[in-house]
Amino acid sequence: MKLYNYCRSSASFRVRIVLNLKGLPFDYIPVHLVRGEQLQDAHRARSPDALVPVLEVDGHMLSQSMAIIDYLEETRPTPPLLPASALGRAQVRALAQTIACEIHPLNNLRVLKYLTGTLQCDEDEKTTWYRHWVRQGLLAFERQLDALDAQGVRPTAFCYGDAPTLADCLLVPQIFNARRFDTDLSGLPKTMAAFDACMALPAFDAAQPSRCPDFTP
Amino acid sequence: MKLYNYCRSSASFRVRIVLNLKGLPFDYIPVHLVRGEQLQDAHRARSPDALVPVLEVDGHMLSQSMAIIDYLEETRPTPPLLPASALGRAQVRALAQTIACEIHPLNNLRVLKYLTGTLQCDEDEKTTWYRHWVRQGLLAFERQLDALDAQGVRPTAFCYGDAPTLADCLLVPQIFNARRFDTDLSGLPKTMAAFDACMALPAFDAAQPSRCPDFTP
Repeated sequence: MKLYNYCRSSASFRVRIVLNLKGLPFDYIPVHLVRGEQLQDAHRARSPDALVPVLEVDGHMLSQSMAIIDYLEETRPTPPLLPASALGRAQVRALAQTIACEIHPLNNLRVLKYLTGTLQCDEDEKTTWYRHWVRQGLLAFERQLDALDAQGVRPTAFCYGDAPTLADCLLVPQIFNARRFDTDLSGLPKTMAAFDACMALPAFDAAQPSRCPDFTP
Repeated sequence: MKLYNYCRSSASFRVRIVLNLKGLPFDYIPVHLVRGEQLQDAHRARSPDALVPVLEVDGHMLSQSMAIIDYLEETRPTPPLLPASALGRAQVRALAQTIACEIHPLNNLRVLKYLTGTLQCDEDEKTTWYRHWVRQGLLAFERQLDALDAQGVRPTAFCYGDAPTLADCLLVPQIFNARRFDTDLSGLPKTMAAFDACMALPAFDAAQPSRCPDFTP
């Protein structure tokens, strides 16, 4: 397996965590987003959407982090990253999509570039934008954890059940990003407890940007 | 089944299509986004993320459109909205996520409000922003259809295989939105052919905003 990705890309980080949790070794192939390597022909030949991550697996090139994770979950189901019940799966997916569809798309590099470029926002406006969407999204995430607690499906600090799920795999990269932009993370006790529980595990720790071969401080 | 939703919400529209395709009758409960009804206590009691759609099904309140659709696919699998092969499913999901994670989050109502409110963008800047992300995303979508054609998995005009899949259910609402903002849809022959093939089906036609009880021109 080869993972074409970038150390600071949240979507890449998600897939690294999943590969580690499932014990799947992979070759790390860096694609430098800030230098625009994802837009070059070599990468476009791998993926028509010209994004990272791309996973080369079973003779295929797969793109979109959530689709990649679903593929791995279907073809390498151990350990499972989704609960056994259809309701539990829907709840975990809703948590994951709160990050994948409500927070992250607003804050990735090309959007921030549009703000400072085309819209000529200053650094303060860009940072306020960034923090706004992270904060709103994580508050919704926390309220979902409250609701799951009321249903008695959170016996440990992980988002659901007693082991990491897809929701935790999405949460951790988002918290890393939030901290980079010095976002207020107060009032999110359950969310941050899930983050801490994950980061105590080698699979999450080893996937973080600073452990990647293309990392520069 | 009860669907708490709004006629013009793309995420709501996706779920309406899926319910129709699967032949599942539902009560349509309007939640008026422009009036902010999704933020009121009555709706917050249904869903901690205070978004639409919310589907009341099997005694549960489910949120996030993609999680709702996955739940329906798992519990009401006929007709299937995902291909039989793991690769096919990953490809269809990647198409769907190109819309759900790359286009739609940048262009929903609260984001456009932030642009014109906090960032004081004028109408022209807002519209340019809108069109930019739709256009970039749909061009990536078209390139993915090209790649699937090269693999011979598109015998008809639908995005994948010979019947609508999750990808079509996401595409159609996005095209409706694109047209509302008069976005350039040239150079997207396969994407628009998929849209047209879908709109010839009653399940898609009946789900469109103008057919909804809360629609006002």
